[in-house]
Amino acid sequence: MTNAGAMLDTYPQDRDGFDHDLLVACLDACFECAQTCSACADACLAEDMVADLRKCIRTNLDCADICATTGRILSRHTGYDANLSRSVLEACRTACKACGDECSQHADKHEHCRICADACRRCEQACEALLASMH
Amino acid sequence: MTNAGAMLDTYPQDRDGFDHDLLVACLDACFECAQTCSACADACLAEDMVADLRKCIRTNLDCADICATTGRILSRHTGYDANLSRSVLEACRTACKACGDECSQHADKHEHCRICADACRRCEQACEALLASMH
Amino acid sequence: MTNAGAMLDTYPQDRDGFDHDLLVACLDACFECAQTCSACADACLAEDMVADLRKCIRTNLDCADICATTGRILSRHTGYDANLSRSVLEACRTACKACGDECSQHADKHEHCRICADACRRCEQACEALLASMH
Amino acid sequence: MTNAGAMLDTYPQDRDGFDHDLLVACLDACFECAQTCSACADACLAEDMVADLRKCIRTNLDCADICATTGRILSRHTGYDANLSRSVLEACRTACKACGDECSQHADKHEHCRICADACRRCEQACEALLASMH
Repeated sequence: MTNAGAMLDTYPQDRDGFDHDLLVACLDACFECAQTCSACADACLAEDMVADLRKCIRTNLDCADICATTGRILSRHTGYDANLSRSVLEACRTACKACGDECSQHADKHEHCRICADACRRCEQACEALLASMH
Repeated sequence: MTNAGAMLDTYPQDRDGFDHDLLVACLDACFECAQTCSACADACLAEDMVADLRKCIRTNLDCADICATTGRILSRHTGYDANLSRSVLEACRTACKACGDECSQHADKHEHCRICADACRRCEQACEALLASMH
Repeated sequence: MTNAGAMLDTYPQDRDGFDHDLLVACLDACFECAQTCSACADACLAEDMVADLRKCIRTNLDCADICATTGRILSRHTGYDANLSRSVLEACRTACKACGDECSQHADKHEHCRICADACRRCEQACEALLASMH
Repeated sequence: MTNAGAMLDTYPQDRDGFDHDLLVACLDACFECAQTCSACADACLAEDMVADLRKCIRTNLDCADICATTGRILSRHTGYDANLSRSVLEACRTACKACGDECSQHADKHEHCRICADACRRCEQACEALLASMH
């Protein structure tokens, strides 16, 4: 729970067409997932079996980058461009699905991967819900 | 309230010397401030008086960038380097102070600046507390 | 011209399927466009007619964020995921097209928008070429 | 060699006090170092001896983040704040020194670490030169 909802309500002009609650949920999910994936990449790096977690680390880094960028873009409403928003939401959904799938394969051995897989699923679903509301 | 605390508790090795609760508070503050400053920059851009908010927009963008970077760096514990951590925390504290000061000058006119000034103060104090605990 | 090509040649394993020269060109274009869009957003903010450049500033900020993220993701080869790469390249192409279109509308008045429109076009085409080579 | 110099020359107002050539050199060094460190982190991750490169990977990721943020902040001139600029330049110099030191320890074994150590040294020196010019 961030300031995302409170800030959204102070935007001084008519806003883009995003549903208020779906947008806030997606913003929160993106920032949470960015933090969680950054932490999971580092925890994987510290595991004895780091050599088996290479793909997981890489996917975590990618997902952290895309979630952070998506969270920033969704924080902006001025000069809204539906094509651009849709395109970045699709990339974020794809990254979250890839990272959630990868982390869930290590979830029984590593609690950080289990928590991270959950954060990725939530963010994937939040992107999906926001995308669905655009049509 | 993010996953920051839960993820921290899953780190598989002995961690750097940061106090647990101060670190979680600083992580949450950095990610919150990054989102809030991104949103405040965009809300300022949408104001009729945008020409009077140029410095506020720029400082918001800087603060968002530094808070995001600080949040990522604090999410990592492997290969901890106290000098590097201290240096980025000092930069983050400086940026949050600058942005809090700037936003507070517009807080009576713009609710987004008021909320953002508060987020900057919280993050400045969280960085300060974490820095103080390092000595 | 960055280190991108030299670094690519040192990657210690078999790499993903990207064509070497198209990948280097896309990496360089992404980092150049990220810098140029950040500078153009700030130059627009300093113009007397800033109120007419709101959409341009916002699109510049989005494009800078996506190009930076795409450049990072393309810098990684370990655990390559074609779906994720394709998705972020499509988002980057979309953002560069949007920003190139917007900046080109101000190119006669503002030299920074003219230079930025060119950087966006180059990056859009580099993403397009890399995407085409994936099929 | 990016657009950094060309964009700087189009800034429509009186600029901050940074020396033109030192600023352009620092901008180029920051973006180059951000890309190189991202690539070096990934190349380290792909090495057979990844377990010995944990600290190198982490420092690369930190340095990439700080260089990217510093490059963005130096791309802005509107509403210049000397304290904030100095603080982020100091953090960038510290991160580049830490990463250059770490990578140089692996430079004989890994060509990517050798190239990356050089990029970090260049960026450290560019930050140092820009900082020195501020006094």
